[in-house]
Amino acid sequence: MAEYEVRFASHPEPIGVPAGTLLVDVAREGGIEIQQPCGGQGRCGRCAVRVESGAVRRRSVLRLSKSDVAEGYALACQTVVEGDATIEVPPPEAIERRLVTDHIAPEAALPEGYDPSRAQTIRRVEIRLAPPTMDDQTDDWGRLCTALRQAAGIETLDTTLEQIRSLGAILRESDWHVAVTVDLGTNGAPRLIGVQPVSEAATAPLCGLAIDIGTTTVTVWMVDLLTGRVMRQASQYNQQIARGEDIISRIIFASKGDGGTVLRDLVLETINEMIRAMGERLDIGRDHIVKATISGNSTMMHLLLGIAPESIRLEPFITPINHLPRLPAGEVGIDMNPAGVVDPLPGVASYVGADITAGVFASGLRDSAETVLFIDVGTNGEIVFGSSDWMVTCACSAGPAFEGAGVVHGMRANRGAIEEVWIDGGTYEPTYRVIGNVAPRGICGSGLIALVAEMFLTGIVDKGGHINQTLATPRVRRGLHGAEYVIAWAAESDTGEDIVITRVDIDNLLRAKAAIYAGFNVLADRVGVPLETAEHVLIGGSFGKYINVEKAVDIGLLPDMSWDRFEFLGNTSVKGAYLALIDQAARNEIAAIASAMTYIELSADNSFYEAFTSALFLPHTDLSRFPSVAAAMT
Amino acid sequence: MAEYEVRFASHPEPIGVPAGTLLVDVAREGGIEIQQPCGGQGRCGRCAVRVESGAVRRRSVLRLSKSDVAEGYALACQTVVEGDATIEVPPPEAIERRLVTDHIAPEAALPEGYDPSRAQTIRRVEIRLAPPTMDDQTDDWGRLCTALRQAAGIETLDTTLEQIRSLGAILRESDWHVAVTVDLGTNGAPRLIGVQPVSEAATAPLCGLAIDIGTTTVTVWMVDLLTGRVMRQASQYNQQIARGEDIISRIIFASKGDGGTVLRDLVLETINEMIRAMGERLDIGRDHIVKATISGNSTMMHLLLGIAPESIRLEPFITPINHLPRLPAGEVGIDMNPAGVVDPLPGVASYVGADITAGVFASGLRDSAETVLFIDVGTNGEIVFGSSDWMVTCACSAGPAFEGAGVVHGMRANRGAIEEVWIDGGTYEPTYRVIGNVAPRGICGSGLIALVAEMFLTGIVDKGGHINQTLATPRVRRGLHGAEYVIAWAAESDTGEDIVITRVDIDNLLRAKAAIYAGFNVLADRVGVPLETAEHVLIGGSFGKYINVEKAVDIGLLPDMSWDRFEFLGNTSVKGAYLALIDQAARNEIAAIASAMTYIELSADNSFYEAFTSALFLPHTDLSRFPSVAAAMT
Repeated sequence: MAEYEVRFASHPEPIGVPAGTLLVDVAREGGIEIQQPCGGQGRCGRCAVRVESGAVRRRSVLRLSKSDVAEGYALACQTVVEGDATIEVPPPEAIERRLVTDHIAPEAALPEGYDPSRAQTIRRVEIRLAPPTMDDQTDDWGRLCTALRQAAGIETLDTTLEQIRSLGAILRESDWHVAVTVDLGTNGAPRLIGVQPVSEAATAPLCGLAIDIGTTTVTVWMVDLLTGRVMRQASQYNQQIARGEDIISRIIFASKGDGGTVLRDLVLETINEMIRAMGERLDIGRDHIVKATISGNSTMMHLLLGIAPESIRLEPFITPINHLPRLPAGEVGIDMNPAGVVDPLPGVASYVGADITAGVFASGLRDSAETVLFIDVGTNGEIVFGSSDWMVTCACSAGPAFEGAGVVHGMRANRGAIEEVWIDGGTYEPTYRVIGNVAPRGICGSGLIALVAEMFLTGIVDKGGHINQTLATPRVRRGLHGAEYVIAWAAESDTGEDIVITRVDIDNLLRAKAAIYAGFNVLADRVGVPLETAEHVLIGGSFGKYINVEKAVDIGLLPDMSWDRFEFLGNTSVKGAYLALIDQAARNEIAAIASAMTYIELSADNSFYEAFTSALFLPHTDLSRFPSVAAAMT
Repeated sequence: MAEYEVRFASHPEPIGVPAGTLLVDVAREGGIEIQQPCGGQGRCGRCAVRVESGAVRRRSVLRLSKSDVAEGYALACQTVVEGDATIEVPPPEAIERRLVTDHIAPEAALPEGYDPSRAQTIRRVEIRLAPPTMDDQTDDWGRLCTALRQAAGIETLDTTLEQIRSLGAILRESDWHVAVTVDLGTNGAPRLIGVQPVSEAATAPLCGLAIDIGTTTVTVWMVDLLTGRVMRQASQYNQQIARGEDIISRIIFASKGDGGTVLRDLVLETINEMIRAMGERLDIGRDHIVKATISGNSTMMHLLLGIAPESIRLEPFITPINHLPRLPAGEVGIDMNPAGVVDPLPGVASYVGADITAGVFASGLRDSAETVLFIDVGTNGEIVFGSSDWMVTCACSAGPAFEGAGVVHGMRANRGAIEEVWIDGGTYEPTYRVIGNVAPRGICGSGLIALVAEMFLTGIVDKGGHINQTLATPRVRRGLHGAEYVIAWAAESDTGEDIVITRVDIDNLLRAKAAIYAGFNVLADRVGVPLETAEHVLIGGSFGKYINVEKAVDIGLLPDMSWDRFEFLGNTSVKGAYLALIDQAARNEIAAIASAMTYIELSADNSFYEAFTSALFLPHTDLSRFPSVAAAMT
């Protein structure tokens, strides 16, 4: 069998392999790491590599778009060598970006009893107009409006000059038989989206987008508006990350020179890349996408729309606008029908944005007769405490410690991150689990929570977060930043360095968890309803998905309640945006939630600082608040 | 005294004159004609010349804009030679274009009892906002809306993303003390036009435009919206004329290639030139102009807005749109505040446009308990017959004969046009009056009406329009186009040619007047109200201003009624636009007029052709309809 030479950009020597060898096997031969989370079944797409030149055969291109393939991408686990070739292994981030989730998550299921013809604001109405005659000289626009009134009861219709300009030709070319797409709007101001010949419209899709813009991750769901069903889901890192990890650094970047424009373009590109990838997969062109609802924190919303967010950062922390009007898509820059409508969901304050109002709606808190605590821990921590009758909310500037920032070996929850830790109470030796089952590169949020909890319960740190340097273990030592604990030795880590947690790291984590717990206390105190009366603790946001409740209670991040009261809801922000997209009643309810919430600015609250200081301990100064932890400590 | 040499582009030799000689005197020295309608007082601006190079001193530049002067323009009657110079005498049209009427015509007077604070839709509201604090975290937009509700009772406010983007900075820079300009809109949809610091707004003008787009002439009135007063009036030839004299040739031009764009740009340039000239004179920048109402025939309206007008020309003659929405100025292209509002007035049909609905409103017909006949003779003839209770309307495709087109020596009513003619019944010798009191170059509409009337009453033509070739006068002769009558011999004309009217010319004029008179008849017959019962005949349009009623009756163009029933209203279209601009009730009434008018398409009316044929005689087949003419004939 013929032997071929395969070169990898990152590898000095060509690798000789027989024809028909899978690229993953070639890579293994050369010691080159290629991710294969699905085990080489060609299902996850994460082993994508780029064939720079040479002959290969792709057995499957599932998960790759046409343009991916055109650019040379191939699944290393599904592609065999058929000649000399040069291969590039892109960094994991580059691959992550290209991925579109094909399966639809359970939380994206169509609401029960949903009736698109009643709930939707988008209508596509087929109309056969009586052609004009010498005896019926009604103008084209008047003729259309009259027919639309008769066919669909639409009394008035907003439009643009652009649409009026093209109307006459469309009506005549279609022989006066057209499909009219209208957005009924929120408060009775229907707007024309388009007029097409019926022949074109019959088979044309009619789609919408539910978009959640997180500081770290942007999520887009593509929805069939004719049925209300989610057709595709996609998530990507917000490309703005390259210009600042957290909200404050983004705002600062936006306020300098053309920073605002740069950030706007980056988030638009993030969104539009996903729309294009999904559209390609589903064969849906931009003109078929006629409506988008947008959720996200207030800063992300302002950056998307090109509204300067400076005042969000500066006392007294004011948003330029919480309730945005519906906007013509062409003005916003999202890659959809420019005559379509973009509906930014309403926020409450600078640090309680549409992600929370949409999230609260999706969580069902508003329908609950019992008291509920809603938490969204992302780059910030937002809390809502309430029921169907009342709601108070606040934002805790927890900082990005739980996303791995401000921690020496912290990292995001990616491949190579330690996500769970156990420590032996006798030997102080740790066991850990790494995302992707590879050598560890660092520790992500859930790993940090577990680590601090285990260190506390095994006595490696005391309730003040001080590391006990008298323990008989080499894992506790003095490092550059003072006392530290070694989770992984250099020999077992991917980086060739010891992976440690320092006293400073623990302080940062304590401050983050204390900010959130103090938020709970202030809200509860303000309304005079004890925190413990919360029948449910609903946790939204991507962070919540991976959190270990027991460990989070152990460190005093979450209140000490029985486990069955906690519920993880996933991305409630995008779910709320989805429900608002397909159901006008949901959209109105989100607006009602935004108006009903009482916002408490913690930095203006006298009791906050005290509550914060009390929570700077493990689990808390007042141990009686954490009976289960007290029990475990004994 | 020093002698200098002055060169004129049109003159072969330099002219030597002493220093301090007026340019008009230099020109006279060289036999070069420069217009001086005001007699050299520097008031009319019509003697403007361009100093290409050299030293002159301008004693006065009244009537010239700064940019005129920058381009070298000078008033020849006010400018003296101070060195060698080269002068260009622009053609009269070029001067005419640059002129802005300084005096305000009587018809532009402020309506009696007008109260701008009630009638206007534009409001400028001064607001002092409570600055945000840690305890009052309302967003900027919400704060503005609340304050506006409290200060002016404005409940909802439409805006654009652009305005939201700039709001935060303006509020903070102005220390929360701002002037907010709002358009209240037609049906309760107020729209934000702008927010400025109060310090800026205090002395800032707030202006509007009333615009009438005629096929031949475009008129713009600049209005102070704070008082409702007209500040300046300007008129120019519609620059589209270069691409077709009449409506049909414009539509044909628009339908080829980028013809629509070319025509749109030309009319925008016509309008914007006048706005800039007036703005410069009044020191009013584009941002201070926040509203414009537009009147004009349906084709002109469609061309301005870039809406293809083809269907207007083709049976069954349908307009794309009669009732246009208010449009953001930025979309239309008029040189005003891009956030301002452009309000195109409503039309009725392809050939009865906003010029007629606005004109009828301005004429007062709608308030008349008695029957009124309203006529607008421009490039077409539109007629409305009615009272406060009912209105019928039609358009007569009279053609542009009365504007001098289709007549061998016809011309527009410019300098050099014969505008009035008398013929001696014994000698058949004419006396005439020429616009500008110069040697004649041709005959304009009023001159043609007078000429045909005189020829008929003196027997030079018979009732069929045939020239009597047996008369003992050299002025009746056979020419290239058959029989003709010489009004001015070559020796007395400016062109060095005989100025004549031919049999073919007379036929064209008969067809034009017959079309209009037949229109009267069809309308009257349709409603069963005799034409003679009209208590008033109101004549709008620029043509009407110069018409001699007696002569028009003599040829059967106007119905034979006593003179006191005729009234000339001037440009009712722009007047209607002005009233709509300053008074929302007027605007609503114009819409009501558009809806109330019954349009009769003459080409679909069986009785029209008969009425037309009967009217092809002088004055009419049925002489009993014209008793005063019958009396004059005897």
